[in-house]
Amino acid sequence: MAVTQADADGLDASDPLASYRSEFFRGGQAGDIDRDINGGGRDDDEAYLCGNSLGRLPHATIERLSDEVAREWGTALVQGWDRWTDLPTIVGDLIGVEILGARPGETVVADSTTVNFYKLAVGALRARPRGVVLTDASNFPTDRYVLQGLDREIRLLAAEAPDDAVIDALQSGDVALVTLSHVSYRSGVRRDLPAITLAAHDAGALVLWDLSHSAGAIGIDLAVNDVDLAVGCTYKYLNGGPGSPAFLYVASRLQHDLSQPIQGWFGAKDIFAMGPAYEPAPSSTKFLSGTPSILGLAAVEEGARITARAGIDAIERKAASITTFLIECLDEAGADVVTPRDAHRRGAHVAIRDPLARERCDALAAQRVIADVRAPDIIRFGLSPLYTRYQDAWRAAHVLSTMKDGSR
Amino acid sequence: MAVTQADADGLDASDPLASYRSEFFRGGQAGDIDRDINGGGRDDDEAYLCGNSLGRLPHATIERLSDEVAREWGTALVQGWDRWTDLPTIVGDLIGVEILGARPGETVVADSTTVNFYKLAVGALRARPRGVVLTDASNFPTDRYVLQGLDREIRLLAAEAPDDAVIDALQSGDVALVTLSHVSYRSGVRRDLPAITLAAHDAGALVLWDLSHSAGAIGIDLAVNDVDLAVGCTYKYLNGGPGSPAFLYVASRLQHDLSQPIQGWFGAKDIFAMGPAYEPAPSSTKFLSGTPSILGLAAVEEGARITARAGIDAIERKAASITTFLIECLDEAGADVVTPRDAHRRGAHVAIRDPLARERCDALAAQRVIADVRAPDIIRFGLSPLYTRYQDAWRAAHVLSTMKDGSR
Repeated sequence: MAVTQADADGLDASDPLASYRSEFFRGGQAGDIDRDINGGGRDDDEAYLCGNSLGRLPHATIERLSDEVAREWGTALVQGWDRWTDLPTIVGDLIGVEILGARPGETVVADSTTVNFYKLAVGALRARPRGVVLTDASNFPTDRYVLQGLDREIRLLAAEAPDDAVIDALQSGDVALVTLSHVSYRSGVRRDLPAITLAAHDAGALVLWDLSHSAGAIGIDLAVNDVDLAVGCTYKYLNGGPGSPAFLYVASRLQHDLSQPIQGWFGAKDIFAMGPAYEPAPSSTKFLSGTPSILGLAAVEEGARITARAGIDAIERKAASITTFLIECLDEAGADVVTPRDAHRRGAHVAIRDPLARERCDALAAQRVIADVRAPDIIRFGLSPLYTRYQDAWRAAHVLSTMKDGSR
Repeated sequence: MAVTQADADGLDASDPLASYRSEFFRGGQAGDIDRDINGGGRDDDEAYLCGNSLGRLPHATIERLSDEVAREWGTALVQGWDRWTDLPTIVGDLIGVEILGARPGETVVADSTTVNFYKLAVGALRARPRGVVLTDASNFPTDRYVLQGLDREIRLLAAEAPDDAVIDALQSGDVALVTLSHVSYRSGVRRDLPAITLAAHDAGALVLWDLSHSAGAIGIDLAVNDVDLAVGCTYKYLNGGPGSPAFLYVASRLQHDLSQPIQGWFGAKDIFAMGPAYEPAPSSTKFLSGTPSILGLAAVEEGARITARAGIDAIERKAASITTFLIECLDEAGADVVTPRDAHRRGAHVAIRDPLARERCDALAAQRVIADVRAPDIIRFGLSPLYTRYQDAWRAAHVLSTMKDGSR
């Protein structure tokens, strides 16, 4: 390959986010933190390129969970709720305001992305009692499945339908809700969120974005773009841990009129009033339902803090730069890159098409390059800007290139 | 008081579950475990009587979470899903089979009690497209609120309506679903689950029990009693931690026909097929929706294991015995006990009515008796059989009796 490991090393040396890598656990036992921080952890020779699936463990999270378990749950016990009750909105604003560009009070964290997507989709369709749901076949499966369970006609565009096709489809004027993944979980294609949101509003439709593959990887500017509704996951680029609670965003201007179907006590105006009739909170907390996971919220808060501190603009610049570098390396390795070459049209992962995707991915893993497969023929390389090194990207392509004549 | 502290000490000395108390963290920092196990922890003089609200932290959970965080999330990373994917059903069966008397494959753990209640209530009402929902005004608020959000008439019985009134109301023949709390969160009254379930079936209705205040405190025998549907929380007597994921039970005979509204990828037959159409799993996993909280599930598994090991029969015997003892003490203290005197008609908490409930509860806390209030005038004393001592019960009543002439 003409791009050399030295090129990767040079880029790592000048990476303004390079120092953030040391904030993540390198593997081993929790007691090994000293060794870990001082180097020698198991991951120095591993390229973990699945941060778009499950982000890494921050050191701060280990401390925080230990504290939350022993000091808060174990010692404060039920009095912990004096503090815990507000965590969904505190962590919501941390993500919403500092990472997604929302206004304060528009974002909460609780439940799964699926449950949040359901709540907002049902709420939106109640607000638009007529018209179809517009989505595409490459929207994340759980979103498509939820929509299939609702009592509303779905207009399904082809997988990876161009943004223009979405905007054209809105012209029919009978769309109640358009809902898409901001960044495709397969191809990494980033949709033109500003243009589609504007076109939806022109057509009288609401828009619900799934930000799972963009939140914490690129800037989103929810308020600037006047987005109606959004959901997304916190265990990818936000490093909240396996199955950590998801976020949900509702623009302030919609909060009064929009209702949600799962009217639980945490969405009530006064949780402990426990009165006869449900009275929704007058803010984003009305979109909460049951008791939120406190350990989950604590972990999300720590993960999101690192992203907020690094700054989403710097993170997006690194995402653009390292995905550009990987695409260059993959081109040289002869791989069939399906992710757009324009950095503004992708997120922070790069996908290639390969008929032997599964075998290839296993062979990569054997050489400590951890990628994943989306059936039948996509290999994904997630480049999490806070901890993925240019040398990890280089090695992924390099190992792939060595298979070209052999296993390929 | 004629009942003396020596009586309490005697009962503690002969308590067959006494040894389980040492399996719970006594407060302080996680590093203090040695001191904690060897005595001297801060709780020796504290009567924590809110285990019916938030159960205590097991030592095993501290270890497990540390392992799950550092070894599993931090090190196995995305490969952890090879094991995590089955946790909702593994922990579900642990609770369902070993604690609730369900058959294997009928119980899963994920989401909140509220979300699970919503899923099963909607599923039940789809299966019974006509008829009303029967419940009572003392059902837990989140359940009533969820029902109010559904498009179905509710027939609301009075708070604490007698079981006979429920059974009478079923005779009208127009009930689609009867849903009640097994044990009232306020009064501690236990409903006659076998008789109401039988009467519901005779009337052609489905029954959905909220077991939040009975699971892990008393035997339930879901299979023997042919219960249709149930949900419940894991952070009370099952000691799963604040906001830990809840359980959901669907009798095998209903699983094929019952659908659920939040069709997410974790409820699909093959999660990673990610195909065009939602195809539900052929088992209880079809009632899952989004990605479950792995830290939450791990903590629930540890908490539930202790309950399973102690045995629900022994736990129920202790619950009956210690609530009997507390009621005796409260009678002597001149308190107005509202919980039934027949142990078969209550769970593991005892409630008194007091017009100065809030002030009284604060005064108890100042003397290290931790109880809680349900507005306007109920003080609850939770007696968690695995760790509450008879001396804790005695001291609650004793401290209360000293207020009689003073603050009372």
